Amino acid sequence: MANANGKIIAPKILKGFRDLLPESMIPKKRIIRTLEQVFESFGFSPIDTPALEYTEILLGKGSGETDKQIYRFEDHGGRDVALRFDLTVPLARFVSQHFSELVFPFKRYHIAPVWRGENTQKGRYREFYQCDFDILGSDSVNADFEILQVIRNGFEAIGCENYIININHRKLLNAILAKFGEEEKSQKILQTIDKIYKVGRDEVVRILVEDEGMNADTVNGILTTLRLNENFSKEGIKGKEVFAVLEKLKEEIEDKQAAEELLTVFRNLEECGVLEHFAYNPAITRGLDYYTGIVFESFITDRMEFGSVCSGGRYDNLTGLYSKNAVPGVGASFGLDRLLSVLEDKQMFTKKNSVADVMIFNLDNSLIAKYYLLAEKLQKAGINCEVVSSKSKLGNQFKLAERRQIRYALIAGTDEFDVQKFNLKDIFAGEEKKAITLEEIISEINENKKVNG
Amino acid sequence: MANANGKIIAPKILKGFRDLLPESMIPKKRIIRTLEQVFESFGFSPIDTPALEYTEILLGKGSGETDKQIYRFEDHGGRDVALRFDLTVPLARFVSQHFSELVFPFKRYHIAPVWRGENTQKGRYREFYQCDFDILGSDSVNADFEILQVIRNGFEAIGCENYIININHRKLLNAILAKFGEEEKSQKILQTIDKIYKVGRDEVVRILVEDEGMNADTVNGILTTLRLNENFSKEGIKGKEVFAVLEKLKEEIEDKQAAEELLTVFRNLEECGVLEHFAYNPAITRGLDYYTGIVFESFITDRMEFGSVCSGGRYDNLTGLYSKNAVPGVGASFGLDRLLSVLEDKQMFTKKNSVADVMIFNLDNSLIAKYYLLAEKLQKAGINCEVVSSKSKLGNQFKLAERRQIRYALIAGTDEFDVQKFNLKDIFAGEEKKAITLEEIISEINENKKVNG
Repeated sequence: MANANGKIIAPKILKGFRDLLPESMIPKKRIIRTLEQVFESFGFSPIDTPALEYTEILLGKGSGETDKQIYRFEDHGGRDVALRFDLTVPLARFVSQHFSELVFPFKRYHIAPVWRGENTQKGRYREFYQCDFDILGSDSVNADFEILQVIRNGFEAIGCENYIININHRKLLNAILAKFGEEEKSQKILQTIDKIYKVGRDEVVRILVEDEGMNADTVNGILTTLRLNENFSKEGIKGKEVFAVLEKLKEEIEDKQAAEELLTVFRNLEECGVLEHFAYNPAITRGLDYYTGIVFESFITDRMEFGSVCSGGRYDNLTGLYSKNAVPGVGASFGLDRLLSVLEDKQMFTKKNSVADVMIFNLDNSLIAKYYLLAEKLQKAGINCEVVSSKSKLGNQFKLAERRQIRYALIAGTDEFDVQKFNLKDIFAGEEKKAITLEEIISEINENKKVNG
Repeated sequence: MANANGKIIAPKILKGFRDLLPESMIPKKRIIRTLEQVFESFGFSPIDTPALEYTEILLGKGSGETDKQIYRFEDHGGRDVALRFDLTVPLARFVSQHFSELVFPFKRYHIAPVWRGENTQKGRYREFYQCDFDILGSDSVNADFEILQVIRNGFEAIGCENYIININHRKLLNAILAKFGEEEKSQKILQTIDKIYKVGRDEVVRILVEDEGMNADTVNGILTTLRLNENFSKEGIKGKEVFAVLEKLKEEIEDKQAAEELLTVFRNLEECGVLEHFAYNPAITRGLDYYTGIVFESFITDRMEFGSVCSGGRYDNLTGLYSKNAVPGVGASFGLDRLLSVLEDKQMFTKKNSVADVMIFNLDNSLIAKYYLLAEKLQKAGINCEVVSSKSKLGNQFKLAERRQIRYALIAGTDEFDVQKFNLKDIFAGEEKKAITLEEIISEINENKKVNG
């Protein structure tokens, strides 16, 4: 199958793209499935949209940054098309287009690749997965609360223990700025505060005073009201202190709605017994002008340096660009690839290059049907089996199992089938159990899976 | 969020592309998960490759048809790139590039979208999913047998009952042509025979005699040897007859290897008790010159008109274009979208627009934490719950559950939480159970799921 002139084409992939070998794809699939289960357990349903769309649709908002990064071209029919660069713009188009077919509140999740031709750096790719879930058509604060519960359940289901979900409210920030008569500079101030963890408090003050010409006392007043003093914690304000801080803030500002909403959310989180995983963090503002209510970012506390692994918030109108029907909503997005990097860094999964739990050795090609009948019984008990398709020396089959990182070898010849007792070797432990029944094999393997995953 | 000049952009998608709403995506996800489980139960591991590749890599074989259909453009770095049009070419590139990292036999599956700008017709899309699984680096006929077993398990797991997997062998066809001294015309003859179901036996004879200038007796001799007489069955030769036919063919031809391989496969299928789902079908040749051994196509017997829903075969050398390491293999591909159309046509799933099993009604916003604590217990028992986030009239909540096609409504106020007994309404059956325990609710819903899926 060489090409016309017999030349070999050197195999290579595009810069910024990558292959996922089983050792990477197995844990990625596991996390995707886990998150899907969590989303569905709360009644979020899956949707899909095309990878390619009209450029006009995707660039509707006309952000300069996106323009430069988007993969855009002319298709066979002369249409100006592009690959989606996120899942939010396609969702807005989807909801506008199918408005009359959808049942609101519309709860959907969408896990799919997006493409951005940005400059590649460590850990950044031009093709990466987004993992979005949103509740559309509800302006209830209980929908915000649900999104936060889904995030928490997601972390728990994946097996994370040390995580913190940092919450803030754009309208609370604005109410505080209003108190200082600085509402008009809101966008710039919030963007600057958003950087406080990176650049430090002093630099935030310097930017706002020197570059933005704000009064130094006002800036310090705002930061103090926001509890962003010299020794603020990156993890935000936690536990019972949240209520004291929010109640006090509520007294200090005129528009109390945002503070009340946050208090409702935190009280419900407390009643659900999960308050420890949440914090009120006055420094979280989320750069995008898109958000209008509650905003949040989530961190793995012993890997803060990886940044937020799940972020989101509430918006007033998702569909304004494509429809006269204003659709408010709240949603979040797990950064799947970043989450995987964190879990890998924490060595939370053993890298395996096979999904098989047991390898059924082939001692005789004439027994092949019997091996598969045996496999069938194990498969029905939830055990993944690889049958060695071609007989070879026992040593070679052990070598194959080891290279595959498969823990168990099931060894059986004619004699074993005659008495229905088999030999099971635990290759990792170097132990062999002789002449045991199929039931014993199933319980041994499943017991081990429970412990070692 | 209207664009700069406030104009609304009409939401639309590209011709040949489509959105999947929950009612379509829910069954698609279910089938994907089912097939993934089947693949993994046989030890096939997942991989992923980029959607975008160098055009030179994708078009290596230089097929004229593909050239016209491929989505090809120049990226930001001036590279000639294209969207993959299948998962086989990327697999060949992948295996060549990672040859030294892979453990052979390498068993992988890959479920992902591909793109072809072909003319759209009913049921054909420009973006569609392929669902491939292959065993690479094994030339054992037992690998062929395994692929066939995986297909059978796939159909069973999806819940298909009436399916037939039609098998043939390219080398058996060639051995028969050799007997008639017509090996050199093999490509043309096989392509013509492949059309026999569409055009009929007489037309096949006419093409080979009139257009190809073959001797009429030779053509009739070949077709008779292949059991393609006037009343041949589309479902091929089944049951014990397979052995008689293949044994007889084996006697008639010189190169007996192919007949022996088929006999081994069919004997193993018989020993596994699954022979009824397989047939030897001498008219299946698979158009592609790529295949070199066993080939197969699968049909849902009460929907033959939909064509093959899973096809594949054995090839000698996957990687010839990109590597000097020749890698033989055998594999197959489920036509996911076609399979979905068949299942839909057979009404094998009820169209639902929500994954939720039960809707927990909201009688009082102050009970929201209690509703979620209740949901948590149901979720742990595998039940998907939607909590109504905002209190409204009971009638509206019933209306919402009905529009969502959610079967159960769980109704509880302060009194019910006090005594921990709740009301469960089966909306579909119009029956309500009053004051029952959480355990009773769980068993009722799970019992129903077992029956109705």
